[in-house]
Order: sequence, then structure tokens, then C-alpha cells
Amino acid sequence: MVIALLSDFGLQDHYVGVMKGVLAKLAPNARVIDISHQVPPFDRVQGGLLLYQSYRYFPRKTVFVAVVDPGVGSERNAILVETEDYFFVGPDNGVLAMALAEQKIRRIVHLNNPKHFLKPLSATFHGRDLFAPVAAHLSQGLSVEFFGTELTDYERLPDFIPAFSADRLEGRILAFDRFGNAVTNLPKGFVQRHHHGSELSARIGDLELRGLKTCFAEAGPGETLLYFGSGNLLEIAVNQGSAEEQLGLKRGNSVLIPL
Amino acid sequence: MVIALLSDFGLQDHYVGVMKGVLAKLAPNARVIDISHQVPPFDRVQGGLLLYQSYRYFPRKTVFVAVVDPGVGSERNAILVETEDYFFVGPDNGVLAMALAEQKIRRIVHLNNPKHFLKPLSATFHGRDLFAPVAAHLSQGLSVEFFGTELTDYERLPDFIPAFSADRLEGRILAFDRFGNAVTNLPKGFVQRHHHGSELSARIGDLELRGLKTCFAEAGPGETLLYFGSGNLLEIAVNQGSAEEQLGLKRGNSVLIPL
Amino acid sequence: MVIALLSDFGLQDHYVGVMKGVLAKLAPNARVIDISHQVPPFDRVQGGLLLYQSYRYFPRKTVFVAVVDPGVGSERNAILVETEDYFFVGPDNGVLAMALAEQKIRRIVHLNNPKHFLKPLSATFHGRDLFAPVAAHLSQGLSVEFFGTELTDYERLPDFIPAFSADRLEGRILAFDRFGNAVTNLPKGFVQRHHHGSELSARIGDLELRGLKTCFAEAGPGETLLYFGSGNLLEIAVNQGSAEEQLGLKRGNSVLIPL
Repeated sequence: MVIALLSDFGLQDHYVGVMKGVLAKLAPNARVIDISHQVPPFDRVQGGLLLYQSYRYFPRKTVFVAVVDPGVGSERNAILVETEDYFFVGPDNGVLAMALAEQKIRRIVHLNNPKHFLKPLSATFHGRDLFAPVAAHLSQGLSVEFFGTELTDYERLPDFIPAFSADRLEGRILAFDRFGNAVTNLPKGFVQRHHHGSELSARIGDLELRGLKTCFAEAGPGETLLYFGSGNLLEIAVNQGSAEEQLGLKRGNSVLIPL
Repeated sequence: MVIALLSDFGLQDHYVGVMKGVLAKLAPNARVIDISHQVPPFDRVQGGLLLYQSYRYFPRKTVFVAVVDPGVGSERNAILVETEDYFFVGPDNGVLAMALAEQKIRRIVHLNNPKHFLKPLSATFHGRDLFAPVAAHLSQGLSVEFFGTELTDYERLPDFIPAFSADRLEGRILAFDRFGNAVTNLPKGFVQRHHHGSELSARIGDLELRGLKTCFAEAGPGETLLYFGSGNLLEIAVNQGSAEEQLGLKRGNSVLIPL
Repeated sequence: MVIALLSDFGLQDHYVGVMKGVLAKLAPNARVIDISHQVPPFDRVQGGLLLYQSYRYFPRKTVFVAVVDPGVGSERNAILVETEDYFFVGPDNGVLAMALAEQKIRRIVHLNNPKHFLKPLSATFHGRDLFAPVAAHLSQGLSVEFFGTELTDYERLPDFIPAFSADRLEGRILAFDRFGNAVTNLPKGFVQRHHHGSELSARIGDLELRGLKTCFAEAGPGETLLYFGSGNLLEIAVNQGSAEEQLGLKRGNSVLIPL
């Protein structure tokens, strides 16, 4: 069984290692995989985006643990969501929402049964004391209803939801990757459902991009391109350069697609 | 069997990967977990602190390998310490001391039997040639006396040891974590043994903090709080901010607790 | 079976995690080890250097996957090289060349049989869609001829190849490690084959270094030393300091060894 970890803990401290210590104790045979721990502190949008772009490549029944949790110790719920294919565990603050929007939900459980937490439960490190033990027990086959009471819904994040009207789609830049490519909240399927026929173009402020490319090499070095990235989202890149630095783009910038 | 790695090797080079290659060769079934490799170069205090905050969450018999080793190739000893619960391997320069102070020591061995080292033993990379093979053989069940001759003691680091007098405890800030929280050398148990009754307060230079919180959410956003962190040490934080940046704290700052 | 990963994907994004998700699906029992993912973007020299310094410490039959791939989606070939001891998988752009130069080559295969790729094959993320599945199937024992047609040679990188004449060897600085040590392209075996008798010295611009050390501690703190590093290459370091910062060295600097 695979347990996949995502957090804003960084790698300079011991936080991720400690979670893995707990997992090694409680799920000695699980395979633990890091998605990323370099999510900027408290950045649920970036965290949710990485989870969205990753989860579908993991084996069925993978337990995803996403700990980006500015409200740890406060009244936000910790939740577990069982979908047709996977388990998602994390704070109910939207970090899971972009991935869940694509999945057929089976059950949502409020993690309020302390039986499977570490004791004492700290107020500051639920990754170690609550989420890791829950993931470990899940990976060992414990059924979701043992972890708490059922909920009817989970939190969304508005940033993840693109808008559309009769004449255009409107998304936004959610983040930049290591190469400076701008990743939007516009999934390929969503764009293709609404946009037919004419050549696709996009407007970000003064910048107008015409035509979709399929790979970087279709653009000359230093040229700007519009394409669906490997994570199934519309992206803007500068071939062998950085769209973030060279085009002056920012997170949150509106991305308009005329229909 | 679990082997947990801590070092100042960073992740940009091949050093950690090579150690894991050696472990894969000599201990193909061990589970290897990274605590952190982002310890600042040669920083035994930060390394020892991360080890202290982590080790007790790992399964019994875990082999901890802590390589923060400014004196590699010189006359410092390489040691192996067997405690009631764990094995600790590293240079005898204090990096193991904070964790060992809490553990019941069984045996301390000077790693001077070259039989279990890689050959030739390099003078610059004992992580690969000495510590990884020793950890691998230990995890396979080889008894500690085969690794060298017994020692009677190990090195301490003064930074880890808080002071106390009749009217106060005096600790210091050892490090800041990724979130800018200041971590001190004052363990919860030590403070509670000496401080009774009145509300706990702490003085760091001009800053005076009154009252213990149990979680960030008990303080307003931007407010400073004093609390025992998840690693069992007294910490100072700014809720949703950085104590390091916003309070001007520095490593080594004295932390006074009136009794 | 071990699969060792090297890339310029960094750890902030989901790219490495996704590759491991694919590996977990297709090779559930393989042991996956990271060499490094912090190779500077598109830097084949640094990537190839890390691979060279690492590979020989891994178990026989390890599958090395090296994805530093500025030309992804263009006409560069993806290749698989079987050597006497290992498998190497990556773009045919020189990143594999420094390691391969030491190995006895058995077969070179152009990865042009799409049967074992993910479908659809993206044009931007061959690490996930092509290299990870190929590595997974290889680790499961699939023979190399099933992956494509045989090639007669692979790409070299001139940076890796030192020059020699009757009176001197000429190498260059390939990279700096985390500690600021300068690593050259001069392997110990190459230097020892050509240089006999007299004390070894090296000239880098105005800097002249006389005599080989075997470890940092042989030099005083702050002193410059010339030595063969743990990766078997000639290196220049400042003991407990940074050769990069303190000596003003740069990548590409010529390193002359009089014979």
C-alpha cells in the first residue's frame, strides 16, 4: 500500500522525517512517497495544485496525506475522504478540493475519533500525531468509518474554480513551477468542453498568446508558448526561459480565453 | 529494520544518494528514512537538535546515522552508541549528545574495526565509507562489539545544557525552524521539574512573554506566544508569522525563566 | 531491484513525486533512491557529474534514470544503455556520458517502442511518461531489446573529457558542491597514468597549488588544498571554508597539471 505525502514542512527541519518515523512504526510495510514538502508555508492553493497534478498517477488505494494547515489546533476539521480510487487525508481547508472535484466521492469522515491518534495529541503537529497515524491505519486496511463521524461535504477553494460566460472562459495563474512556467486553474477537459473550432488564444493583461503548442521545442528558444501542461492544466512558458521572470506574470493574474 | 539519516550534506549533490546506494547494497531490506540533510554545514547544534526532536517517534531498534562532521579524517572518533531502545552512529563531536542525554546507555563503541568499512576508506566521506556500512551491518543484526573497542563516555555540547539556580532557569535559542519559530534548549520535563505554581514567563532580552499557550490558534494572528513545541522544547513563535524576523531573535539568545 | 533517480526537477513541484507514483504502480517492489533532483535546470554537466560520482556505489543491476532534458519533445533520442554492471536510461544528450565512459557497454537501445510508455505520451514530461515506465519494466526483468532498436553509439559532452600533451594535463572545473569545493573533470586514474614521480601541482589562473592532501584536516582552517575527492576526481577546497567564494573560482576554469 502506498502513502503519498504533501506538506509545507520543508526539508530543513525534522518534521517530515518524524512523520515517516511514525509511519514506519504503524505501517511497516507501506511504501511512503513524497509528492513535495516545499509548498510555501500555509499555501493551500499551491498545495492543492500539486496534489491535483499528481494523484492520478499513483496506484489505486493510495492514501494521500496533505498537510498545509495554517489553522492547526483551531476549529477546522481534520477529514478523510474515500473516493472510488483513493483515500485523501488532511485539514478541511480546501487543500484537497481540486483533486476531489474530479473524483467520485464515497464517504467523507470527520477525524474525530481519537482512538487512532498518537497520545498525547499535540496541538501544533497534527501531521505527526493525527494524520500520519490515520494514514498508517488506513493503509493497513482499517475501514473509514472507524475514524470518525460522517460529513456531507468538504471545503472548496475559490481559486481552483474557473469562470465561464457565453463569450469567454476566465481562469487565473495559480502558481509557477521550478522552471518559471505559469500554471493556471484551467483544466484541459474544461477548456475543450467550452471552446470549439477556432484557434485557442489567451489574454493575460497586455499579453496575447495565439495557438496551442504541444511541446517546448515547437517554440524557438526564448519564445512564449501556450500549452496544456503535463498536469492537464493550461500553462504559459518561455522555451528555455522563465515565464515568471521574463513576462512579469504574477500569481492571481487573470487568464481570459475568448470563445 | 529502519535506518534514519541526518546530515549536513544537502540535497544538491550526490552525497545522500550515494550513502543510500551503499545501504541498498549491504542492507537490501532495511527501510531508509531521511530526518533531514539540510543541517547548515558543520552545525552540530542544529543537527543534534533535529535528532533530539525526532528519534523517539521511530520504531525500536532504529539505527540513527548523524553525519555532521567538520573534523572528518582528523582525530575525532567515530562512535556507535547502543541504548535501551536504539542505535546511534556518528562522529563523537556532540551531535548525538542531546538525544543520548535522555536515553539509557548500554554500550559506547569506538568504530575502529575497519572490517566493516568500505575499502579503500576515503578520508573525506565517512558517511559513505564508514557510517553507512556500519549502519547497514547493524540493521542486519550484527552485534555492537564487532565494530570496535568499548569507550566509557561520549562528547557533550554545552549549547544543549540549560542552567538553573534557586530563582531562575537559563536556556538559549538553539535554532529557528522553517516557520521562523525559535526553539530553545529547555525541555518540558526540565522546566516542569523546577517551575511550580505561578504562571510561566520568559525573558529574552527586552522581550517578556507571560503565560503558556498550547497552540498557535490560541494567539491572535501576528501575536507572540510561548509554548512547548512538538519536539518537547520551549519555543517562541509569532502566530502566522516569523518570530525570527519579526522579533529580531538570534541563535544563542539567552532565555530566562523566573522561578 | 534498485531504481536510482537523477533530475533537474527540483523538489518544490510534484514532478519527482509523480515519477515515483508511476514507479510504485509498475514496479511495486523496486527500491527507489534519489541521487539528486537539484541539478540546476538543463545542466547536463552537473547532472552527468553527479551520476559519475555515484553510480559505482549502487548494487549491480541498478537502473539509473537521469532526466536532465532541455530538448524534451524534440528530436533528441531517449536511450537505454546496458553495461556489464548496470542500466542507464535518459535522453541521449551527454548526461550519461561521464559514467558510461568507465563502463563496459553491452547494448545501446533507442527507446522508440511506445509499447511500454504511458499513454498518452505527453510532449513535456518524459520523466513520467517514458523514462519511469521503462525503468519500471527493466527493473521487473524485461530484456533491453523490447524497448526499441539498437544504436551504435551515444552522445559525449566535451566538458567531461580532459586533454593531455607531453608536458601537461589540462582539465577544468565542472561544478562546486554544497561546501564550495571545486570538482574537476580529472579522474584519479587518468592523472596517475600520466603523472609520475614528482610532487603533483595544479595551476588555476594565478592560483598555484603544490602537493596532494588526503583529507581536509591535513590543511589548517582556511587553507587551500588539492586532493582526490570521494568521487575519484581532483578537487580544490578551502578547509572549513568555500573554495568557490574565497578563491574566486568559476565553473569552466582551466586546471593545468605540469607533468
